Amino acid sequence: MSGKPIVPLIEYEMANDTVRAVYDDIMQTRKTDWINNFWKVLAHDPALLKRTWETLREVMGQGALDPLVKEMIYIAVSATNGCEYCTYSHTASARAKGMSEAQLMELLAVVGMANETNRLANALRPPVDVQFEPRG
Amino acid sequence: MSGKPIVPLIEYEMANDTVRAVYDDIMQTRKTDWINNFWKVLAHDPALLKRTWETLREVMGQGALDPLVKEMIYIAVSATNGCEYCTYSHTASARAKGMSEAQLMELLAVVGMANETNRLANALRPPVDVQFEPRG
Amino acid sequence: MSGKPIVPLIEYEMANDTVRAVYDDIMQTRKTDWINNFWKVLAHDPALLKRTWETLREVMGQGALDPLVKEMIYIAVSATNGCEYCTYSHTASARAKGMSEAQLMELLAVVGMANETNRLANALRPPVDVQFEPRG
Amino acid sequence: MSGKPIVPLIEYEMANDTVRAVYDDIMQTRKTDWINNFWKVLAHDPALLKRTWETLREVMGQGALDPLVKEMIYIAVSATNGCEYCTYSHTASARAKGMSEAQLMELLAVVGMANETNRLANALRPPVDVQFEPRG
Amino acid sequence: MSGKPIVPLIEYEMANDTVRAVYDDIMQTRKTDWINNFWKVLAHDPALLKRTWETLREVMGQGALDPLVKEMIYIAVSATNGCEYCTYSHTASARAKGMSEAQLMELLAVVGMANETNRLANALRPPVDVQFEPRG
Amino acid sequence: MSGKPIVPLIEYEMANDTVRAVYDDIMQTRKTDWINNFWKVLAHDPALLKRTWETLREVMGQGALDPLVKEMIYIAVSATNGCEYCTYSHTASARAKGMSEAQLMELLAVVGMANETNRLANALRPPVDVQFEPRG
Repeated sequence: MSGKPIVPLIEYEMANDTVRAVYDDIMQTRKTDWINNFWKVLAHDPALLKRTWETLREVMGQGALDPLVKEMIYIAVSATNGCEYCTYSHTASARAKGMSEAQLMELLAVVGMANETNRLANALRPPVDVQFEPRG
Repeated sequence: MSGKPIVPLIEYEMANDTVRAVYDDIMQTRKTDWINNFWKVLAHDPALLKRTWETLREVMGQGALDPLVKEMIYIAVSATNGCEYCTYSHTASARAKGMSEAQLMELLAVVGMANETNRLANALRPPVDVQFEPRG
Repeated sequence: MSGKPIVPLIEYEMANDTVRAVYDDIMQTRKTDWINNFWKVLAHDPALLKRTWETLREVMGQGALDPLVKEMIYIAVSATNGCEYCTYSHTASARAKGMSEAQLMELLAVVGMANETNRLANALRPPVDVQFEPRG
Repeated sequence: MSGKPIVPLIEYEMANDTVRAVYDDIMQTRKTDWINNFWKVLAHDPALLKRTWETLREVMGQGALDPLVKEMIYIAVSATNGCEYCTYSHTASARAKGMSEAQLMELLAVVGMANETNRLANALRPPVDVQFEPRG
Repeated sequence: MSGKPIVPLIEYEMANDTVRAVYDDIMQTRKTDWINNFWKVLAHDPALLKRTWETLREVMGQGALDPLVKEMIYIAVSATNGCEYCTYSHTASARAKGMSEAQLMELLAVVGMANETNRLANALRPPVDVQFEPRG
Repeated sequence: MSGKPIVPLIEYEMANDTVRAVYDDIMQTRKTDWINNFWKVLAHDPALLKRTWETLREVMGQGALDPLVKEMIYIAVSATNGCEYCTYSHTASARAKGMSEAQLMELLAVVGMANETNRLANALRPPVDVQFEPRG
């Protein structure tokens, strides 16, 4: 285990104008005075940083789903994929948006069960029931 | 592509008493008169069938999270794992519980983005920020 | 196996103006007169469609890496994740960009081997060598 | 997090003749005077060590694809699978073969996007277009 | 890398009656005087803890398959998914049940190969041979 | 869903000498008079075909583990990865080597449970217990 990032963290002071503008928008949108390390490694490709942040801001905001529900979906995917950084960061975000410990544990019970039954279905290959076929 | 299940479907008529009791409970709980194929393949191991159904009934019911949110989490995991049967069955269940097309598409936007950023973090290995460390 | 899409395909004739503008841009960029089904399901969320297409156009174009190399990376990821649609579509794209059968088979030999050694490392947990630690 | 390997590292001095012959070939092929830890854990099964190394040497060498492209494909698969050791080792190898930071970031943009669209396709199940069907 | 659990470990002294009863059963079944950390995090949801332990006890015991074979299957899945905690804990359990180093290495050779050929098949899409179709 | 292989099947009659020699060895080793489709697509790269077959023959034969146990491990990995072809082919192989339905179902109960607890551990991040640390 190394613990060192693959590329150095780009701090605000070292950043070019494009990166600083994204950093500023992140802090303003989140009403914080710091930037988390994920963005500081993405900043090596300013276009990737900008695109990823702008998409995240658009996707995770209020819409047909509640922002807290979206954070929980993020945890579900991150746990399924085993992404350590994402598990810590999105659990922290969900808690900041009000997720209770009971909600976290219940979420994980669903995630665990889905991962289990996904493999039972993959291994036994039941045909899709006609009742489940999409209309249209 | 075969399309045939790995083990034959066990229909109600052929089922033993343990399996029939589970099938009856499934239909009663869901207020339906049919059993979907997932349970008909699991029925080859009545203990597995009973345990899986009873856990699902407990996990997916009302609790700290809304049942519809749970179905959407199931879709998120199933899409991440690429389970075809599970995608069809849980999308159908979520729709039956009221999921709109706008909610489905927004859910998938989050799932897609989480799968993307999980890999950016896995590849670039940013250290977990101290601000994200769990308290306690 | 159902074979039916989860949401109906949105054909050009039925599409709204935002969707049509994206479809037009896809056909113009690719110099084709048809739209593949992936976009026709995404079109249920015009903002997701537009964002995904614009990102794809930007990411997959000429840059520090050759477009054919990028298509081969897409195949590598899609095979690792088991995405059927993506395997067919990106293999077709890579062939259209000149990938030979020898290149495809050699690519897959690397993908197979990486998937193998990833699990040997995951299971045996060798410490990261200091020589592999990123500088900076 | 343990950090200890599951089996002890087998150093050159402790190794049997089969293992030493592989270690010698690794150092000669790579023109280095050290062996990385992956091989030192595999050495517990000399046949597995020998086979894995000989396959790697054959697969990753010059062929229809450039060795640097192959290292980048290795990174793509390792990031998708979340293999920490493999990410560090193959990023280091790719850099040693000349990968620039711009190439790394562009590679990861493709990897991220492929992981995203793989799940959009898995969740929405568009049928494979006839235009994408392989000939022959 | 944080190293801190997402929720605090619930030690025996702090545990409620439901949790203590599970902890007692774990120690009695395993003939040990300690509880491993997996259960101490699950204990935040006593129902999830109880259900998971009871299922594990039932599934991993003597049956149509030998308990050691089951531990090796657990290692195979955990290595495939890249679960660090599970790799350490189930390798330790398998060793406690008599797994030799030769068996571990041979197991991993199979796991590596299966992960490799899974992707070759996913990428090349050979049709399922009629000879492999399940009867019934 | 296409159903067509990405590259045409190479039948014995069309095969070159290297491929025929492998096909002959497969039929002789397995005491069958047919070749399954997996090898017929790999045959587009005779070196990959030869290497994969020879490794499989070596890895899956009698050793420290029983060949039937190895087939079951193959099923466990294939179900976890969702590889359809591999699920059908290795379930057929395991049955040909004597796997009973009770063994199959019990295997899958373990696979399902491992996939579940892998995600609970990934999401809750319990530290690895010192008792589980490898000696040496």
